[in-house]
Amino acid sequence: MTTAFEALNAETLPVRLGRTTALLERIGADTSAWKIREVGDGNLNLVFIVEGTRGSVVVKQALPYVRLVGESWPLPLKRSYFEYNALVRQEERDPGMVPEILHFDREQAIIVMEFLSPHIILRKALIEGQQLPRIAQDLGLFVARTLFRGSDLSMEARKRKEDLALFSDNVELCDITENLVFSDPYFEAKLNRHTTPQLDGIVEELRADRDLKVEAQRLKHLFTAKAETLLHGDLHTGSVMVTPGETRVIDPEFAFYGPMAFDVGMLLANFWMSYFSQAGHETDGDRAGMRDYLLDVVIDIWDVFRDEFSRLWHTERTGILYQRALFEDRGDALGSAQALDEVLQSIWTDMLGFAGVEMHRRILGLAHNADFETIEDADLRARCETKALKLGRHLAVNRRKIHSIADINALAERLEKEIVA
Amino acid sequence: MTTAFEALNAETLPVRLGRTTALLERIGADTSAWKIREVGDGNLNLVFIVEGTRGSVVVKQALPYVRLVGESWPLPLKRSYFEYNALVRQEERDPGMVPEILHFDREQAIIVMEFLSPHIILRKALIEGQQLPRIAQDLGLFVARTLFRGSDLSMEARKRKEDLALFSDNVELCDITENLVFSDPYFEAKLNRHTTPQLDGIVEELRADRDLKVEAQRLKHLFTAKAETLLHGDLHTGSVMVTPGETRVIDPEFAFYGPMAFDVGMLLANFWMSYFSQAGHETDGDRAGMRDYLLDVVIDIWDVFRDEFSRLWHTERTGILYQRALFEDRGDALGSAQALDEVLQSIWTDMLGFAGVEMHRRILGLAHNADFETIEDADLRARCETKALKLGRHLAVNRRKIHSIADINALAERLEKEIVA
Repeated sequence: MTTAFEALNAETLPVRLGRTTALLERIGADTSAWKIREVGDGNLNLVFIVEGTRGSVVVKQALPYVRLVGESWPLPLKRSYFEYNALVRQEERDPGMVPEILHFDREQAIIVMEFLSPHIILRKALIEGQQLPRIAQDLGLFVARTLFRGSDLSMEARKRKEDLALFSDNVELCDITENLVFSDPYFEAKLNRHTTPQLDGIVEELRADRDLKVEAQRLKHLFTAKAETLLHGDLHTGSVMVTPGETRVIDPEFAFYGPMAFDVGMLLANFWMSYFSQAGHETDGDRAGMRDYLLDVVIDIWDVFRDEFSRLWHTERTGILYQRALFEDRGDALGSAQALDEVLQSIWTDMLGFAGVEMHRRILGLAHNADFETIEDADLRARCETKALKLGRHLAVNRRKIHSIADINALAERLEKEIVA
Repeated sequence: MTTAFEALNAETLPVRLGRTTALLERIGADTSAWKIREVGDGNLNLVFIVEGTRGSVVVKQALPYVRLVGESWPLPLKRSYFEYNALVRQEERDPGMVPEILHFDREQAIIVMEFLSPHIILRKALIEGQQLPRIAQDLGLFVARTLFRGSDLSMEARKRKEDLALFSDNVELCDITENLVFSDPYFEAKLNRHTTPQLDGIVEELRADRDLKVEAQRLKHLFTAKAETLLHGDLHTGSVMVTPGETRVIDPEFAFYGPMAFDVGMLLANFWMSYFSQAGHETDGDRAGMRDYLLDVVIDIWDVFRDEFSRLWHTERTGILYQRALFEDRGDALGSAQALDEVLQSIWTDMLGFAGVEMHRRILGLAHNADFETIEDADLRARCETKALKLGRHLAVNRRKIHSIADINALAERLEKEIVA
């Protein structure tokens, strides 16, 4: 029996979910004792925290439109199905890094999952100046494992092609990325906004920058055509929940088959943006230490990613690509090492490009981030944003010529100190 | 009602297809007068020519195994569905270049189509020394139009993703290419064969060639991951039928979403192989003129492809990539030209690689081609094959450094004259 979609609210939730065994077992069967708070502060969905006598869960429900914008921007419920499928695969590929799923209702677009507590959103922690000791290690491993294990480097080809087909139906969310990340920032698209008038000059400059526009479109071409692995698809610091001892990745509703470099690039870009935003959050004291920490995090994520990807290459390369029969099994381990270098080099180059456009779209496009948005002084905010825009342009256009994260960090420091501008 | 699959034969065909209106209209309703010949000389399927009182048709039926090998190598009937879907799209994208379809039966894996007469297989014509005047123009346009119009450069993104999903189920035929083209030739795979003992030395050399093996796997990675456009998937000279006045492309059962460069590279490789095979067919006279013709065909296909692709870029770029809103509409036509150069450069580089491995797999793998196979003198055949193997290696490994088709043709001529070896 198909039931028409109906949005949950605090009153109907206990009735509608009150017979879900996994949920009752987790939080207690006395639904009259449930305390329900709607906490969705994201752009798209309803999110409830449901607290029972024995514990708490999160109930996430997609709405048939973009919550941030309203019913004028419809967005299909099936994104919940892709999120569910992505969570299942991420759990397999890097166990313990995503919330445990207790219940999924495809028709009602509801996912009931573990309530992460006392975790907070990583972006919020970074704005507060918290130095989380585990994130570089945990996130580096997460991207290496999910990206490697979702690809033809590891999976059976038939299963990978089935997943490719499954997630290729996530058209509407890909469309958001395709427009908002790669195109809108570079022309006068309706949904754009930026700190004005302070950024007007640099915005005009960037939109007249031919090399940048061509690169952004080359990257879009890569994004739509390189169906290499199952991406998280929206892996920024707002999709990570943390405590000092634990890191969890949430909200993979943008999941689809795309280039490995995309998740990595988006992730690193958000740390560089955090770096440039720190100057806007120094009311409670100097953030020099925080800035050093953030640059170290970027270095470490990339190192951990490379190391883990390389380890998986040598130990789990069971897919159809770069078969051992051609290399190790013929005594040619160096051939396999050479191929690994080429694969990593390609991820590196593309990753820098994706990082560059991500930095632009968060400042020029529709979906800004709190790192900059919470800086109330518009002049100060614009100075922070300008540095990020400049680094983004540098990365996107020069991505084939850049040598190391250390070099990029050095450039970021020179931008921060206004030695270069 | 689902009917179990049953292979056609000359006796059952009139009974089973005798009520197919489109067929009766084309060849005449008197089924007792039908003359039926089974002519399948390919590797996979049954092919009948059915001649009635008013005309003739081809009836192609997939078998649930590889015809060349037998029931020990099962191959699903659904390849007929992919062939049908590819033919429909190719007809839309380059009208008149594929056979007209009269009837399709998905369950019985039967396609009834126009009988092309007096067309012969292009490969056969080239072996005979025929210089077809139209093929470069027709094939250059065909690849440009089908590759451009099946991609995000032209299609609505949602439709392209639907097609990506549809063809991603063509796993088994992709698997054949993935193994037979990119991997088997480079190690001692069971199904391989080559002219022995004459080629033993160079085969050993190629299988020990680290750079070549790494490139072959990089190309395989590209083949499986770059879901850029709907490929024919098997575009060699055996998939083209010709008269002096007409060119038709047949047999797209390997169709799937892959890199644009694949169809182009495989096509050009088959002309270079024809070039090196000519020395084996000089019993009826010198083939110097034929060799010049073949090198000109390669030049012309690439030129026509580039010109038509560029024309479509300027006139039909209606997809989500490289939008006019970012370039022409802002008075930046040069930005669009710059992006076109980059796209063509990328196709060029990858095309050379695909051409290189195609030349290897036809000499070292399972599926050889008649150009060389019909040379009875094994020493002579091996001399021809050796030159093709060497050019293939050169193209695959040096694909990023090669400037023009003219340079490659000059190298082919030096190999042919044994100035280089």
